[in-house]
Order: sequence, then structure tokens, then C-alpha cells
Amino acid sequence: MAITLYDLAGTEADRRFSPFCWRIRMALAHKELPVDTIAWRFTEKETLSPTGQGRVPVIVDTGRWVSDSWVIANYLEDTYPERPSLFGGSAGRAVTRFVQGWTDTMLHPGLLRFLVLDVWRHVHEKDKAYFRKSREERFGSTLEAFTAGREDRLPAFRQSLQPLRSLLEAQPFLGGDKPLYADYTVFGAFQWARGISAFKLLEPDDPVAAWRERMLDLFGGLARESKGYPV
Amino acid sequence: MAITLYDLAGTEADRRFSPFCWRIRMALAHKELPVDTIAWRFTEKETLSPTGQGRVPVIVDTGRWVSDSWVIANYLEDTYPERPSLFGGSAGRAVTRFVQGWTDTMLHPGLLRFLVLDVWRHVHEKDKAYFRKSREERFGSTLEAFTAGREDRLPAFRQSLQPLRSLLEAQPFLGGDKPLYADYTVFGAFQWARGISAFKLLEPDDPVAAWRERMLDLFGGLARESKGYPV
Repeated sequence: MAITLYDLAGTEADRRFSPFCWRIRMALAHKELPVDTIAWRFTEKETLSPTGQGRVPVIVDTGRWVSDSWVIANYLEDTYPERPSLFGGSAGRAVTRFVQGWTDTMLHPGLLRFLVLDVWRHVHEKDKAYFRKSREERFGSTLEAFTAGREDRLPAFRQSLQPLRSLLEAQPFLGGDKPLYADYTVFGAFQWARGISAFKLLEPDDPVAAWRERMLDLFGGLARESKGYPV
Repeated sequence: MAITLYDLAGTEADRRFSPFCWRIRMALAHKELPVDTIAWRFTEKETLSPTGQGRVPVIVDTGRWVSDSWVIANYLEDTYPERPSLFGGSAGRAVTRFVQGWTDTMLHPGLLRFLVLDVWRHVHEKDKAYFRKSREERFGSTLEAFTAGREDRLPAFRQSLQPLRSLLEAQPFLGGDKPLYADYTVFGAFQWARGISAFKLLEPDDPVAAWRERMLDLFGGLARESKGYPV
């Protein structure tokens, strides 16, 4: 039986743009586990009530509900140990948390100042007021003011990718010769951007852009074929 | 026969403050390999001529010279596979490169703007002119101007440690329950600071400070007993 994934969607049900859901989409494909995704919107908190919280990704696997991308990745790794490993052992799992920490605390906040208005434009009509209000309270400014002058911030953003770039000058994936969950963790952020924004984040000759292409090619072009803007 | 390590020293031969050498000191202890260190100064390039380059760390293991901390760590892992692993497998090794990338491109440059004048004060008399000239050319400013107003940069520096801090809220070491080379990579930067500067980098209640204490305790207090400033 396929695993069910509640997956953030916009006005169009097939526009999927949660960076955390993309981690799990890629992880499920890596583990060769079939999935049925359900388009979910921000204000549909009640749908997720079996998990005791209101955010996606959430999976349901033979009746078991699991939330939080890191918990889900660990659940998949431990429940399906005979399938391709997401972490390559306990040390790989431990160090991958650092990649996640960097993504969550550096990459996502940097991207948010480019993307949040584009997110708002793409969220479902019923989510628009909730999304704007919750984010504007968090930022202490309007979405428009928060993203203003984003072109000026591009050089600093590109500089902030140096940890990733220096790795990619030595090996094709964070996981080494092949992608692992560390790759999906970072890639989710770029797939978030691609889903809702035409803003060009990377120079075409950036090693990070070449890695993003490799990620878009994985699993028969799973991420590339998802609705989004060409990068 | 013990491995020889050429290890950066200051005016005092027992003050060791290279972040890259500290990675290898800790890695050798982790692998339970005895080491004889040789105090080395910046201008003693010729001593390292068998390696075809002029920087430490350099090790000599039964006549074989190896330079570059990453290459040395991999050499130790592959030459002594029966001893405790530095990486915990190929995935751990691959993802550790990201930790190294972050340390080299984010943590070290941030620390340099606090520490470089303190480094200059501690380097050997014969290194002082070389060190100042090479660094001032690289920075395009005097060492004094480069480090001026460092107190004002502390909040941004502490914020830049969020990737590490968020990991340490979930587990005691980058390697998980026990330290691995990923830990030594980051710790080398703090041991660099400790060796030459009394400047307080961390708040005492920072999880990063608690991790640093755990690192100082390892291997019978190897790093703590090295000459430096209390942190």
C-alpha cells in the first residue's frame, strides 16, 4: 500500500512548494517507496489533527501518522532498512543534522527575504489572509517591505552558499558520489524557490547550479517535472 | 614508531594554535596513534620541502610525508582502518566535507576578524614581519584596522553559529553520541582562538560553549592542557 503524503499546495493543486515536503518526496523516491500525495493548504490544520500539530510534511503509513521532516526521514530509514539508505549509517545520520541545521538557520532565512511575497502570490485564496498576517507578525513588516531590494542582497546570498560550493568543488553530491538525505535537505530549499518564483538565485556557472541540475534529474526528473519556474 | 607532526608554534615552543593542526592532533588521539610534535614556525617553509608546499599540518609516518589536514585525516582513516573510525563510513566522510566547508568558509573568516592581531602578537619573532605583511596584503588593511571594533561584531558572529547550535540542542557531538572528525574540524577553530586570545567569543550558557568544554575534556584533557587562555 502506498504511503500517503500531505503536501503543501497552492491555488493550483499540482504546485507543490514546501521545502520540508520536498525533502520527504525525494526521500520516498530514494527509498523506492510509492506515495500518494494529497494537496494540503496552510489553513487545513484540522486534517492533521492525528499528529497533534498543524504543519506538513505528514505521512500516513499503514495507519501510522508521522510528522516533522526529520522524524519522517528517520522513520523511513528505520522502518525500511533493507531499502537504499538515506544516511549511510549512524555517523552519516548524525552529521546530516549539521546540514539540516545550516539549511534551516542560514539558507531558509536568506531565501525567505527573496521569496515570501512570491509564496503569498501562489498560496490558495483561502490561505492568503492567514499567510500574510502570520508572516507579517513574525517579520514585523509587510511582505512587500520584507522582500524590497532583493537584488541588492543577491551577492551576500551567493556568498552564503560557500560551504556548499566548496564541497561541490570536491564531490558531486553532499552524500559523495551519490545523493543522500543531506542533498534532499538542501535541495528542498531550491525546489521551494523553483515552485513559486522566477527570481534567479544562482549564476549559471555556479557549481551549486550544476548540482541543482543533477538533483532535478534524479528519479526520472521527479523535481523537474513538478510545476514551477525554469531555473 | 610514533608519527611526527609539524605543528605551528609561537614565540613559546609549547604554544600551538593552528586550527588545522588541532584537527590532526585530535584525530591522532582519536585513532590512538602516538605522536611526536615538532614546533614549526611560518617562515620555516624549507623544512616541509618533501611535501612540495609550505604549510602545516604535515605528518611523517614511517618515512611517508603527508600534508593538508583533509588529506592527512583520510590517510589516517585508510591506513589504520582497524582503529576507531574518524568518519564512520563513506557517507559520514562525504557529509563531513560540508562541515569542513562551513568551518573554512564561514567560521574561520569570522574568527579571523577577532583574532588576527592576537595571532601576530604570539607568533615567533622571526615570523612577525612575514605574518603581518602577508595578511595585510590579503586583507587590504592593517591588522589593527581589520580587527577594530570586534566587540560590535560579536552578536553577528554568535548568530553565525546557529547551524552548530541547533545540532547541539539535539545531540552532544556532531558525530552523534561520540565525537568524530566533524567535531575536530570545528573544534580546531575554537582551539586556535584559545591558544592566542583572551577575547570571549561565547556566552557561558551557549550550547556551543558546553560542547567546547566536552571537547576540551577529551583524551585526558589534551586540548585543555595545551598552553592557552582560559575560556
